[in-house]
Amino acid sequence: MALVVEKFGGTSVADAAHIKAVADHVVRRHNHGDQVVLVVSAMGSETDDLLRLASDLSDNPPARELDMLITGGERKACALMAMAISALGVTAESFTGSQAGFLTDDTHTNAKILEITPERITDAVAAGIVPVVGGSQGASPQRNVTFLGRGGSDTTAVALAHAIGADYCELYTDVPGVFSADPRIVDKARLMATVSFDELLEMTASGCPKPAMRAVELARSHNVELHVRSAFTWMPGTTVTREETMERAIISAVTHDTSEAKMTVSGVADKPGVAGQLFRALANADINVDMIVQNVSAQGVTDISFTVPIDQLATALDIATGMQTDLGATSVSGDDGIARVNLIGAGMRTNPGVAAQMFETLAAAGINIEMISTSAIRISCVIRADDTERAVNVLHDAFELDQPRDQRS
Amino acid sequence: MALVVEKFGGTSVADAAHIKAVADHVVRRHNHGDQVVLVVSAMGSETDDLLRLASDLSDNPPARELDMLITGGERKACALMAMAISALGVTAESFTGSQAGFLTDDTHTNAKILEITPERITDAVAAGIVPVVGGSQGASPQRNVTFLGRGGSDTTAVALAHAIGADYCELYTDVPGVFSADPRIVDKARLMATVSFDELLEMTASGCPKPAMRAVELARSHNVELHVRSAFTWMPGTTVTREETMERAIISAVTHDTSEAKMTVSGVADKPGVAGQLFRALANADINVDMIVQNVSAQGVTDISFTVPIDQLATALDIATGMQTDLGATSVSGDDGIARVNLIGAGMRTNPGVAAQMFETLAAAGINIEMISTSAIRISCVIRADDTERAVNVLHDAFELDQPRDQRS
Repeated sequence: MALVVEKFGGTSVADAAHIKAVADHVVRRHNHGDQVVLVVSAMGSETDDLLRLASDLSDNPPARELDMLITGGERKACALMAMAISALGVTAESFTGSQAGFLTDDTHTNAKILEITPERITDAVAAGIVPVVGGSQGASPQRNVTFLGRGGSDTTAVALAHAIGADYCELYTDVPGVFSADPRIVDKARLMATVSFDELLEMTASGCPKPAMRAVELARSHNVELHVRSAFTWMPGTTVTREETMERAIISAVTHDTSEAKMTVSGVADKPGVAGQLFRALANADINVDMIVQNVSAQGVTDISFTVPIDQLATALDIATGMQTDLGATSVSGDDGIARVNLIGAGMRTNPGVAAQMFETLAAAGINIEMISTSAIRISCVIRADDTERAVNVLHDAFELDQPRDQRS
Repeated sequence: MALVVEKFGGTSVADAAHIKAVADHVVRRHNHGDQVVLVVSAMGSETDDLLRLASDLSDNPPARELDMLITGGERKACALMAMAISALGVTAESFTGSQAGFLTDDTHTNAKILEITPERITDAVAAGIVPVVGGSQGASPQRNVTFLGRGGSDTTAVALAHAIGADYCELYTDVPGVFSADPRIVDKARLMATVSFDELLEMTASGCPKPAMRAVELARSHNVELHVRSAFTWMPGTTVTREETMERAIISAVTHDTSEAKMTVSGVADKPGVAGQLFRALANADINVDMIVQNVSAQGVTDISFTVPIDQLATALDIATGMQTDLGATSVSGDDGIARVNLIGAGMRTNPGVAAQMFETLAAAGINIEMISTSAIRISCVIRADDTERAVNVLHDAFELDQPRDQRS
């Protein structure tokens, strides 16, 4: 008998039939003796539909009101789910984030959890009731409704699992688990039975869409056992573990991301403070800068390249262009035709051969590398967006990611 | 400068265009110096849509979950309205019933207001903010979300107007005010500039759909000045007053109701306790019995006739039939082909000529009267449903309701 938090994403509660399928699963599990706590996202495209309504009414809706509006999606889904479970003879009760005890800060549309007082949830579980909690929501100290942001239901589930001392947390999505590459573009992509927190973090930070990175970070820091599963196949999926890094390089996956653009500020003086000045200005405008590369200095001047989300490129260009004289830069340019491919795995820093093999593989396929950055468990290359699919496939082949780790050459 | 609570019904917030029109009205009023507090219903058919979803998932959804689900409709509408007002440059903030301080009992789907602590609303008003409150909702002492029932937004508005000491309360609907008869079936129906609480109560109790009777009762007992207006024409509408009853009979309106069925329990012993036994059993099953008539006793037996909502007829027949032996009744019958026409006005009890004229008018039109009941300010006749439209028209003509009161013969 286990105490389990199960989170169901939007596609797994998209309509009455899907909600019933989830309810059926929950009731079986409950009758099997497990104690189940559910966290649900908004149904299908509900959040987008609500945002469309908001944009019909205002070019710049107040964040507080957006939160009141959007959290209604999860609230609706959790009430419906509680009805569906009750209809199968197991008592279920829905809870808003506030009712479930989620106290957050007041950063509307992207609130952070401050504290959870889950007494209503633990009381319900003790009474044999299945609590169904609205995901991605809470209440601020000012008693306003807050939204944790897109993908926040994963965070709700992990935080709740920690708060109630659940044995583990299952994140049910529309994919069967974590793959060695995007199965939509790599035929041989392999479903990974296990992945480490660090690897999964790097994967979600570099293009792997599920689960939400923030939830993985939270699970990692609170040591919450995480399972990524499909609400369509109900197969075991991927277990996220706290596995030790091996001495030998073990490549887990290749991910890709086409949501970013590249910016280059050229010919700036290679002296302290210049980069700080630039990135402070971008940070003040909430530009989400990623992957920064500063090229080798030649004659005391240097080029700084970095990536930003495509939809922030125009703003970032405006800011950098406005600072061009201050920075002493010769030019500022942007490029939204790029993609990033990332190789994820343990032990890469101490195995330089991995990076070399990655660059050789891309070169052999005639794919030019425009930027490189590495972490302890990731190597990222910026390439032309048109080359993405080919790059992911040749890398997946080169590192034999379709084979279980112990069967690679 | 007035402090006003304005309630907008579902059709007046049915889509973005309507919400914008309401926002425009509110902003004009705010800029004119009035302090406006809004109460909004769910958009258009939202409540029905949510109920349909619920019925897809459960034949008998738990009332607690229905409330969590349905109140989401008003919550969505109030967030969108706050955005629309803010987009026009006036700060607005949405509040759920719970946030607005509505404490209710725990009768889910039909909760009663216990207490209002409207500090967040009065604070917002003092800060120059337009509060937009979700109608028909609150929180129970157990901190569960509760729904006040269909039409509950009128109740929310009146109760809030009383709690914050508003100068008056305006109920905006899709009709221009209170009419002397249903304008859809009586061409000459007259928009009434004023109506008394008592008259309006009798009208809403006997087929006049707006405003909700419960809200009128509340306004009457707390002496809240009530205006019934249209969110489509923005004309002055009808003011509900505490007018004194005149000595002379003043007929206000003729209303009709085709939502009820007639039941007759025949041949029961004319002795104490029989009616009590019957109506206690019906009340225990939550059958909403209206208009009870017991015919004159003949040879110690009597017939009891009464009306019930059409959708409760089958249940009521089952119960009465099951008691037939106990009651000593010779038969139990139901008839769902009836309608009720009602003449509303002050001073009718002391003016017996009014009842006579009503019966004569119907008789002259060849319309048979099956049941009669009267109150101090109402005379109701049950007739065949097919005769409804004709009955309402001949009565409207006979009492010259198309004329202002002081110009009738």
